Amino acid sequence: MGDLVILKIGGSVITDKDKPFTLRRETLERLSLEISRGYRRLGKKLILVHGAGSFGHPIVSETQIHKGISRPEQLLAFAETQRWQNHLNTLVTEILQGRGLPAMPCQASSFSIMEEGRLVWMPLDTIKGFLELGLIPVLYGVPAYDRVQGCSILSGDQIAPYLARELGAERIIHGTDVDGVYTDDPHLNPDATLIPEINEENIEEVIKHLKASFHIDVTGGMLGKIRELWKLAEIGIESEIINADKEGLVEKALAGERRLGTIIKAKTK
Amino acid sequence: MGDLVILKIGGSVITDKDKPFTLRRETLERLSLEISRGYRRLGKKLILVHGAGSFGHPIVSETQIHKGISRPEQLLAFAETQRWQNHLNTLVTEILQGRGLPAMPCQASSFSIMEEGRLVWMPLDTIKGFLELGLIPVLYGVPAYDRVQGCSILSGDQIAPYLARELGAERIIHGTDVDGVYTDDPHLNPDATLIPEINEENIEEVIKHLKASFHIDVTGGMLGKIRELWKLAEIGIESEIINADKEGLVEKALAGERRLGTIIKAKTK
Repeated sequence: MGDLVILKIGGSVITDKDKPFTLRRETLERLSLEISRGYRRLGKKLILVHGAGSFGHPIVSETQIHKGISRPEQLLAFAETQRWQNHLNTLVTEILQGRGLPAMPCQASSFSIMEEGRLVWMPLDTIKGFLELGLIPVLYGVPAYDRVQGCSILSGDQIAPYLARELGAERIIHGTDVDGVYTDDPHLNPDATLIPEINEENIEEVIKHLKASFHIDVTGGMLGKIRELWKLAEIGIESEIINADKEGLVEKALAGERRLGTIIKAKTK
Repeated sequence: MGDLVILKIGGSVITDKDKPFTLRRETLERLSLEISRGYRRLGKKLILVHGAGSFGHPIVSETQIHKGISRPEQLLAFAETQRWQNHLNTLVTEILQGRGLPAMPCQASSFSIMEEGRLVWMPLDTIKGFLELGLIPVLYGVPAYDRVQGCSILSGDQIAPYLARELGAERIIHGTDVDGVYTDDPHLNPDATLIPEINEENIEEVIKHLKASFHIDVTGGMLGKIRELWKLAEIGIESEIINADKEGLVEKALAGERRLGTIIKAKTK
């Protein structure tokens, strides 16, 4: 399925970090317009994946279900966390559908299996069927069944690379709230500079920087993202991390433009 | 998994038939209390399945997606219909969780495959995992990928028997808005009488009656339900159709009481 592009939109883009369970509705309206325009210009199959943001992180941090189920009351937290993710996805797909996009909700945790926090199984025949029909499957970060620890978090940052690899996607576009990957945290260090491309020459240095500089959230943050995307780069699937908060970038990226943020690919050209 | 009971609650019980996209909230609050009490008395694994009612039937009738996808604009209707079902399930599981039940949303259409309106594949390892953890998976009627016609309806009345067969459930309890199966439509004919048990002796006569008397809705109505349940009865899985609108019956049925409505089982005792 080489005519497939995966667009991941970070939870920090579509939800308000500071207000639990709050959508950034205006941003999402703008992104929906960009996605509908970009999708037409793309002329390929598209899967969307979105993060949980403030619909997920606070409840997970509080209940610690990402580390597994050790107390019976965590079962209720597991189920409640899932309900909140479905609620978020309902809000997101409503806005996408409002732009005429056939954005098909897909709850990954209803059919996925994790092992110690890693996604090990997700049957994809149904998603392939959706794509062939012309639907745009919309997956999202969820708490999922883990056969070792009971529960772990299947983040959008794990879903997107898994789908890319298993379905043989052409590329992943990662819409985040930063311009790309920096030499240091740009929110904290004004001297941080953007890395336009991560490739075989600088990957080790970048990983080293990220390990030293970034706060690790429950889904692994930028370091986890880069590690996942690098594995894809090694099998020839290119990624680009762009700033989805900057107007027009998501549309441009979908339309095939490059060098909008940080590209991750194995071979230097 | 002989210690598993499946409770199906009809869409006509939990939604307002006359008002599209409207929950019968008081009924659902009462049922949640009954389910939480009944679940404790049951002491077994439980799966809930609910219908779509007025969150599904009007949009399906209007867009005809249950007959398949023949026009591009039906793709949007497919995705919108799915979003509405997720929204309904979010409302339902919120109320169940409010009673402390670890009611885990499971979107069946994200992993199921249909063929000309029949469910042919649904991987169940994740649902088995949920049950082993102690969660109560909550599935619901959805528009699903059909590899012949693009889309068809995977109703709760198909999901419940499929799960019962594949997981080897002990019994299915069908909570409906009637007291059980009647000799004629009790809403139209005051002389209709309740059939307390459907078994080998009267199944053919019952099917004949139902064919003659009942309106067939998009999911097949009572006739479809009986046909599905009879197939289960033939492999030893008992069902009972009860009136979930009558206070206390769902709790009693979960607690193991019988003869509350119409029992469907192969052998006469």
